[in-house]
Amino acid sequence: MTKRIDFQPDPSAYKHWKLSYEGPVAYLTMDVDEDGGLFDGYKLKLNSYDLGVDIELADIVQRMRFEHPEVKVVVMQSGKDRVFCAGANIRMLGGAAHSHKVNFCKFTNETRNTFEAAMADSGQQYIAAVKGSCAGGGYELALACNHIMLTDDSSSSVALPEVPLLAVLPGTGGLTRVTDKRKVRRDRADVFCAMEEGIRGKRAKEWRLVDEVIPNSKFDDTVKERAAEFAANSPKPDVAQGIALTPLNRTFGEDGSVTYSTVEVAIDRDARKVTLTLKGPEEDAPTDMDAFTAQGDQAYMLRLAREFDDAILHLRLNEMEAGLWEIQTQGDPEKFAQHEALLFANKDHWLAKEVLQYWKRVLKRVDVTSRSLVALVEHGSCYTGILAELLFAVDRSYMMEDEFEGDNRPIATVTLTEANFGPFPMANDLTRLETRFLGEPETVDKARESIGEALEAEEADELGLVTMILDDIDWEDEIRIFEEERASFSPDAMTGMEANLRFAGPETMETRIFGRLTAWQNWIFNRPNAVGAEGALQRYGTGIRGDYNMERV
Amino acid sequence: MTKRIDFQPDPSAYKHWKLSYEGPVAYLTMDVDEDGGLFDGYKLKLNSYDLGVDIELADIVQRMRFEHPEVKVVVMQSGKDRVFCAGANIRMLGGAAHSHKVNFCKFTNETRNTFEAAMADSGQQYIAAVKGSCAGGGYELALACNHIMLTDDSSSSVALPEVPLLAVLPGTGGLTRVTDKRKVRRDRADVFCAMEEGIRGKRAKEWRLVDEVIPNSKFDDTVKERAAEFAANSPKPDVAQGIALTPLNRTFGEDGSVTYSTVEVAIDRDARKVTLTLKGPEEDAPTDMDAFTAQGDQAYMLRLAREFDDAILHLRLNEMEAGLWEIQTQGDPEKFAQHEALLFANKDHWLAKEVLQYWKRVLKRVDVTSRSLVALVEHGSCYTGILAELLFAVDRSYMMEDEFEGDNRPIATVTLTEANFGPFPMANDLTRLETRFLGEPETVDKARESIGEALEAEEADELGLVTMILDDIDWEDEIRIFEEERASFSPDAMTGMEANLRFAGPETMETRIFGRLTAWQNWIFNRPNAVGAEGALQRYGTGIRGDYNMERV
Repeated sequence: MTKRIDFQPDPSAYKHWKLSYEGPVAYLTMDVDEDGGLFDGYKLKLNSYDLGVDIELADIVQRMRFEHPEVKVVVMQSGKDRVFCAGANIRMLGGAAHSHKVNFCKFTNETRNTFEAAMADSGQQYIAAVKGSCAGGGYELALACNHIMLTDDSSSSVALPEVPLLAVLPGTGGLTRVTDKRKVRRDRADVFCAMEEGIRGKRAKEWRLVDEVIPNSKFDDTVKERAAEFAANSPKPDVAQGIALTPLNRTFGEDGSVTYSTVEVAIDRDARKVTLTLKGPEEDAPTDMDAFTAQGDQAYMLRLAREFDDAILHLRLNEMEAGLWEIQTQGDPEKFAQHEALLFANKDHWLAKEVLQYWKRVLKRVDVTSRSLVALVEHGSCYTGILAELLFAVDRSYMMEDEFEGDNRPIATVTLTEANFGPFPMANDLTRLETRFLGEPETVDKARESIGEALEAEEADELGLVTMILDDIDWEDEIRIFEEERASFSPDAMTGMEANLRFAGPETMETRIFGRLTAWQNWIFNRPNAVGAEGALQRYGTGIRGDYNMERV
Repeated sequence: MTKRIDFQPDPSAYKHWKLSYEGPVAYLTMDVDEDGGLFDGYKLKLNSYDLGVDIELADIVQRMRFEHPEVKVVVMQSGKDRVFCAGANIRMLGGAAHSHKVNFCKFTNETRNTFEAAMADSGQQYIAAVKGSCAGGGYELALACNHIMLTDDSSSSVALPEVPLLAVLPGTGGLTRVTDKRKVRRDRADVFCAMEEGIRGKRAKEWRLVDEVIPNSKFDDTVKERAAEFAANSPKPDVAQGIALTPLNRTFGEDGSVTYSTVEVAIDRDARKVTLTLKGPEEDAPTDMDAFTAQGDQAYMLRLAREFDDAILHLRLNEMEAGLWEIQTQGDPEKFAQHEALLFANKDHWLAKEVLQYWKRVLKRVDVTSRSLVALVEHGSCYTGILAELLFAVDRSYMMEDEFEGDNRPIATVTLTEANFGPFPMANDLTRLETRFLGEPETVDKARESIGEALEAEEADELGLVTMILDDIDWEDEIRIFEEERASFSPDAMTGMEANLRFAGPETMETRIFGRLTAWQNWIFNRPNAVGAEGALQRYGTGIRGDYNMERV
């Protein structure tokens, strides 16, 4: 699996999904092309999915918000007879490297979360209209919707058969959503998750596994009714027209570099290091949201978010050995502040809101990226507002202090804006500054008083906004030592450490999925009982059960 | 490592700890016997520890509460020069089976939690008086104390060097306590955890890693002063005399059975099944707490807790293949209620309080036990109050409905008491019933209305207190099918599933340690970068660094 995985599918050539629109209701039909797998060696039977299917889905959910703001309800349904979705493709999982399995699960988890974010942030609600068998990752797709309708016939059921069938966990938030979102009683959850055949009809509703069970003959009509009803009661304001998300402007170099219009990716494969440079805006901010809307997806704040998001996904899946990401910014801090300010001044404007909420998702993507993240605040940088938020998302940061010989760029500064005090909560529902200063909450207030000031190194250090400030004499050596040290550590230990240090404070369904569920799944994905030659994943479909070491650990 | 591990050390023959008492202050000195390891093949140098050292420590913390209620402050210190504690013994870890490593970490975690519980529940406070190097598990011991004092000399420092040195995580809550208890800024935590040498002096205080840094010349005096001061301000009431915890009455059978005075353990190794029967009291409840105190550790409620606790620990470590535990009770429900009621009626009496709080810890031990747990509510059982709580701790429960042919025992009932509505919170800080009914909180109120009623099967089912009720016709088959099914599943998948289903709702430091940190550590404990022939644990001490696969997953 070494070909480059591309996260920018062409919407006119989706292989696995069909869309139709009826006013405020969109119908999203899963109709997976058996022969359209991302890799060779498996067929995507029974609406099972691989990463390619999910990349299209993520693209659809994203476009629904920008291109179809008129849509208030999205109905997910199946284009196959007697099966809603069979979940992740088992042969694909059986053949995939450990790292691919883990990254696949992370991306699908992020995509499921965008269903819930669409409702929470923009009032765009997902309904799962389940006909046929809905198992494993298929039920997890339904669980990510906010309303599950199940038809009452002999073949339609919901199930999480991973444990009995495959000796792994439901990997896309299934266990967590069953207990925490749907609040299924835990002993019933235990029974449900130990069943291959799943649960259908009335009992599925009684156990809180679905919201409605509807006689088959009335199912299609009831789904339409429910969609119309939800659309009528939707909190989402009417928006007549969206903007188009056109293909990204990007060039891949042979050396692994990627050049976007606002993002530059450089890779030093020997040093296992990526440098990700985000460029400040060259042009002035649009004067108002009409001007911004006219620019559409070329508006700087949206373009930067899309390009940065794509760069993150590309690096995660295609450059797995590059364990250290150095984030830099270069540009005019004040100009960046103007672009950002337009959005905050118009945060009730649908497009301003969508762009800000997209940034929320991009910043969360940074938080759960399993790489050592460091931000370098060099002279000439523009760590302002949203970009300053990166300083609090990374594992540590270094800032240049005073002038550096031969460096004529403007002196390094950090500027806080309202972006740093509320609109971009982490998965733990706190801001990154609140999380950072859990031990000294008064520091958050002190930081707030500095909003709008271009803080030089000593001030930023005083406020605890950066990890370390270094002058011309120490900078190069210190950074080099850090880079070498980090590159020499065991990547597994770094992954575990970062996952534990990044999310202090309260936990939420989201932190449980990425912190707890993921970790247990990773463990199981390494155990012979699942992935060994006689493990359940390898034996799936052979009719022979996995041969297990029965020791409980 | 197949010899039986015993969790009942003889206090007169502790190998690794020394105790002295000065009124309300106890001095607990760690002075590990190099040659006193639980297994062969390693020396416990530099105050490093293995499970045996921790078994003694757990025993001391427990006895401090029952035998020394006059103690208000416990000062932990080292009996060695220049080292406080070097943490878990690396050669032991390198040579141990995966399952032993995981169980070792779980037990040490539970023991660290008892430090904090001693303060929270009984006002018995632990101070770490750190002289010399305090690294890894050594610093985690200090982190479990509520006050850390560090001497300021050239050799004294605190450190979590696991990641750089061993390619594993600090496994005893270190990362979680650094971010969540001590609220260290996460970028500083990142720097701290990537350092082999640790941090000393003023910076350790500034970074919130310790509470006080004291010049070496004044250290011993200041520790004494601080202990006296804490003792004087302690919320703990004065108690002149404790009770003795005498050796447990138990017999081990050749077939794996264990017989205690109130607990019976039977093992069917072929079926990988344990039956744990808790017996109700034969004698009447003591008339008052004087009578209870006179009975001392022979009082039924304390005896049962101690025996059950020991049985859990014994089975966890010594019977790892027995993946299914069936819990039963047999006895007179009303008589049990009387014994329990005496404690609740006197919950301000020091000993009643300690016994109830001990039950809290025992029930939590059940919650985090990595076995499939099922409760059988048979005729003649006494699931009342604390014992009914077991029904909500297990993964599922089955209850006999109506009379069974040839079974003359009193009909099966469940009786709720105040025990089920507050005094025994889970690690998530909710009661087990609140957690069970997250989706329908009104059911908790309905259940409360039934306090004191002996609920037969149909009523218990109606209230959602049991998973399934079965009559004479179905009972045997259903239980057999369940047992066979459960015994056939992959134990790893069961462990992961149970860890995710058991703790719905809010998370706390404790759930993070057992849920998140443990899972990541387990994962890393399976990865070649840590445990492979060229991994860091194997290579430790050879002077050659681990050879890592650098892929980030």
